[in-house]
Amino acid sequence: MPTKTLQQLADLVGGTVRGDAHIEITGAASITRVQRGEITLADAAKLLPHLASSPAAAVVVTPDFPPTTLPCLVVDDVHAAFTQIVKQFRPPRETVRTGRSPAACVAASAQLADNVDVHPLASIGEDVVVGAGTIIHAGVHVMAGCRIGRDVVLFPNVVIYENCVIGDRTVIHAGAAIGAYGFGYHTVHGAHVRGAQLGNVEIGSDVEIGAGTTIDRGTYDATVIGDGTKIDNQVMIGHNCRLGKHNLICSQVGIAGSCTTGDYVVMAGQVGLSDHLNIGHRAILGAKAGLMNDVPDGAVFIGVPATPERDQWRMWGHVRQLPDMRRQLKKIVQQLESAQPSDTEPDRQPHAA
Amino acid sequence: MPTKTLQQLADLVGGTVRGDAHIEITGAASITRVQRGEITLADAAKLLPHLASSPAAAVVVTPDFPPTTLPCLVVDDVHAAFTQIVKQFRPPRETVRTGRSPAACVAASAQLADNVDVHPLASIGEDVVVGAGTIIHAGVHVMAGCRIGRDVVLFPNVVIYENCVIGDRTVIHAGAAIGAYGFGYHTVHGAHVRGAQLGNVEIGSDVEIGAGTTIDRGTYDATVIGDGTKIDNQVMIGHNCRLGKHNLICSQVGIAGSCTTGDYVVMAGQVGLSDHLNIGHRAILGAKAGLMNDVPDGAVFIGVPATPERDQWRMWGHVRQLPDMRRQLKKIVQQLESAQPSDTEPDRQPHAA
Amino acid sequence: MPTKTLQQLADLVGGTVRGDAHIEITGAASITRVQRGEITLADAAKLLPHLASSPAAAVVVTPDFPPTTLPCLVVDDVHAAFTQIVKQFRPPRETVRTGRSPAACVAASAQLADNVDVHPLASIGEDVVVGAGTIIHAGVHVMAGCRIGRDVVLFPNVVIYENCVIGDRTVIHAGAAIGAYGFGYHTVHGAHVRGAQLGNVEIGSDVEIGAGTTIDRGTYDATVIGDGTKIDNQVMIGHNCRLGKHNLICSQVGIAGSCTTGDYVVMAGQVGLSDHLNIGHRAILGAKAGLMNDVPDGAVFIGVPATPERDQWRMWGHVRQLPDMRRQLKKIVQQLESAQPSDTEPDRQPHAA
Repeated sequence: MPTKTLQQLADLVGGTVRGDAHIEITGAASITRVQRGEITLADAAKLLPHLASSPAAAVVVTPDFPPTTLPCLVVDDVHAAFTQIVKQFRPPRETVRTGRSPAACVAASAQLADNVDVHPLASIGEDVVVGAGTIIHAGVHVMAGCRIGRDVVLFPNVVIYENCVIGDRTVIHAGAAIGAYGFGYHTVHGAHVRGAQLGNVEIGSDVEIGAGTTIDRGTYDATVIGDGTKIDNQVMIGHNCRLGKHNLICSQVGIAGSCTTGDYVVMAGQVGLSDHLNIGHRAILGAKAGLMNDVPDGAVFIGVPATPERDQWRMWGHVRQLPDMRRQLKKIVQQLESAQPSDTEPDRQPHAA
Repeated sequence: MPTKTLQQLADLVGGTVRGDAHIEITGAASITRVQRGEITLADAAKLLPHLASSPAAAVVVTPDFPPTTLPCLVVDDVHAAFTQIVKQFRPPRETVRTGRSPAACVAASAQLADNVDVHPLASIGEDVVVGAGTIIHAGVHVMAGCRIGRDVVLFPNVVIYENCVIGDRTVIHAGAAIGAYGFGYHTVHGAHVRGAQLGNVEIGSDVEIGAGTTIDRGTYDATVIGDGTKIDNQVMIGHNCRLGKHNLICSQVGIAGSCTTGDYVVMAGQVGLSDHLNIGHRAILGAKAGLMNDVPDGAVFIGVPATPERDQWRMWGHVRQLPDMRRQLKKIVQQLESAQPSDTEPDRQPHAA
Repeated sequence: MPTKTLQQLADLVGGTVRGDAHIEITGAASITRVQRGEITLADAAKLLPHLASSPAAAVVVTPDFPPTTLPCLVVDDVHAAFTQIVKQFRPPRETVRTGRSPAACVAASAQLADNVDVHPLASIGEDVVVGAGTIIHAGVHVMAGCRIGRDVVLFPNVVIYENCVIGDRTVIHAGAAIGAYGFGYHTVHGAHVRGAQLGNVEIGSDVEIGAGTTIDRGTYDATVIGDGTKIDNQVMIGHNCRLGKHNLICSQVGIAGSCTTGDYVVMAGQVGLSDHLNIGHRAILGAKAGLMNDVPDGAVFIGVPATPERDQWRMWGHVRQLPDMRRQLKKIVQQLESAQPSDTEPDRQPHAA
């Protein structure tokens, strides 16, 4: 791999150099893995000490980064710049368009746009429609009646159940299951009988869905994921839920049936919602929060049962004070007991009367 | 799609009409998505206000539903009736029997009943036995020695490890993994050495298992799931567990190794059990509960560590009172300090003596 | 299946017999499932009562096991011995080496050692390198540029994204997804824009990864799993994490991005870590713990927010005392109020002055 001078990299990303612009850079790596001769990235002032002991030949920083002995490549958007630089030294694989593999199984009635890739060992059911530019990886199974938009990517082993709808430019990662049956039963003569599964899942455009995530189909109509919403790995979204636009749902969140969310909602890892809850626009739910009630717009809830952030922290603080409180209480009780005798001294009784 | 009069729908489901029986119904949808001319469902009195502002042409209700301006189709089981009605307007796909696809890989020694469907890109290992009417979807891999019952459905990308047994009419959803190795190790010279994996998984009849759920094989014999038990998505059941009959296990529950449950146990979302616990018949474990001890029959436990429901709610209530308690305590301490002088006044000491 | 005498089994495992060495043993099963004529295992003294009522013909115990009426096979390592015995009666399936199946899709540029098994319906991408003795099961998809070591086992439907690296003797279970995109976004004009995905995942040797587990690729370089680390089912490991050696990560743990762990770290089920945390060597995180801060070497943390074990148990104990505390407090307040009058009696005021 040819080396680049720091100046060449600065020109590449439209940055400026502090220090020796002529040094040769042999590679790029993050601060924990950078080696001698390579350039690294420092996106926070607290990384300054790491740089002192770093073998790095240079570092990409913002204009306001504190002075360091290393030659600096100064640029406003350090991540955009570092991405370009890494690509110089480790060019990512080209996405090779393959067309429809003869080792894929595509139903006769499926309608695929001309430039759709269907990789080996994928299957596409009857009446499925797939838009232009979409890539369907190996082991993906799209069941009958689904409609997939343009420039969608379905990574290996994704499963889409019957009649589901996926918007344009949406990306679904390995092993995600879209449209499985909702977990709804009523009990008849001691047996749990499954409810109707007549709905589907409708996923908007520019959505991303993580590996192993599951989104169940609606009872009578659709479970809905709004445009631009990003969902991490191993998230569970129950039947009849309707998520708004541009939500960020972190890993291992579980949302029970028939919940709704507004736009720009954020749920941190392992949050759980009971069913039929409404979460307001731009609400934030902290990691591991357990929601049993609706959340208003813009609110921040944490804890189990979930509580407004400030109150929950205060409560946690009080709980940490409990040992002190019990000591105080014991002391008071002793004080009062030792005070008792004087209360019972004869000559004071009349006064008290 | 032809329209139906409200009377025609009432006749279809054996219900009666309140209001204009002659109106034309063009479709059916749930109350949040119903459009002008369609019929909807109100399964709870609290939905009455929604109906006022609804574009719906009519509504399916129970006899005891409060009066509404909308024409009503009155029937005892509103969900059964609405399911029939939705099917009128949106007939579900027929399950087409396909037989054994030439694009499936079935081992020579596998014994499949005549009318088993094996979809493309599924594989069935040596000595596997599959009962009549069973459907094995694309991407399912059934490893050697498994016995699958009658009328079972294995959705795409289900994996069944060697020698597992699945009862009749059981349904397993996309990406579930049955019979992977148990997570048991002993440490030898600093390395974790895997325990024996000589057991299997035995799943009863009429069981349903959700997408992405994993059930590990037993150490020496079987991990067992009882008849009629329903398991939601992304549930983890450890090695040597024995679940009873008709349990309801909600999404993202984790059950560590060697636990047992009685019949009709309910576990809400994200519950966790440590290993070797016994959960009694009809016990209920609330969402996110963390169990460290056995649970008696019929008990309801919530919280971490899990506590009988009433006690846990009381404790949470007390925690919310902590700010008040601390204020009271401070006040008392001040009161007692201000009272101190009088305790030390000379002429009272003798009395105290 | 031929029977064995207890003496024959003792000879097999190098143990000694207490009681009748000539009895015929017809099978082997764990204590909850053992039947008449079979031998079972008792690995803890507390199982003694179970033996009294057991139909077992004999039991494998350690030398220090209390006396029992059942004939005993005495040996130091009861699990190693019982494993041998079970195999006598239920020989496990031989792993049949199959070579490269014609029904697998292997890219022309992939380099497979001679004795690699590639099962039907698996796919291997361009430039992939696979070491000797490795088994790639049905439905596994290894994307372009991956390097897989020797004697690796990839169970059905595992997905390995581009350019990932897997060490020798590592085992990955069904449906695990290695190298999906990290969940990192920045928001531009109200849309969440995905960060760089230029890294990969590097998994060491002798690692085991459970079914449905997901490990995301690094932003600029590798997400790393150290040698000998064992990861259970449905674990989520975020982008840029670096796990040490010989960790034990139990089911449904979630580790957010850029965390590091030392060696011999243990995380119990459903633990959650927020991002950029450092967990010290041999630290133990209890089930369901929620970590928001670093953990020093050897520390044991539990609870949410995670707290040193002893402190957390003490706090939980105090919380359980809250009802008593409130009663005490009420009593004190009443006492003080009833004491008020005497404080205000005229003739004591002067003294107080």
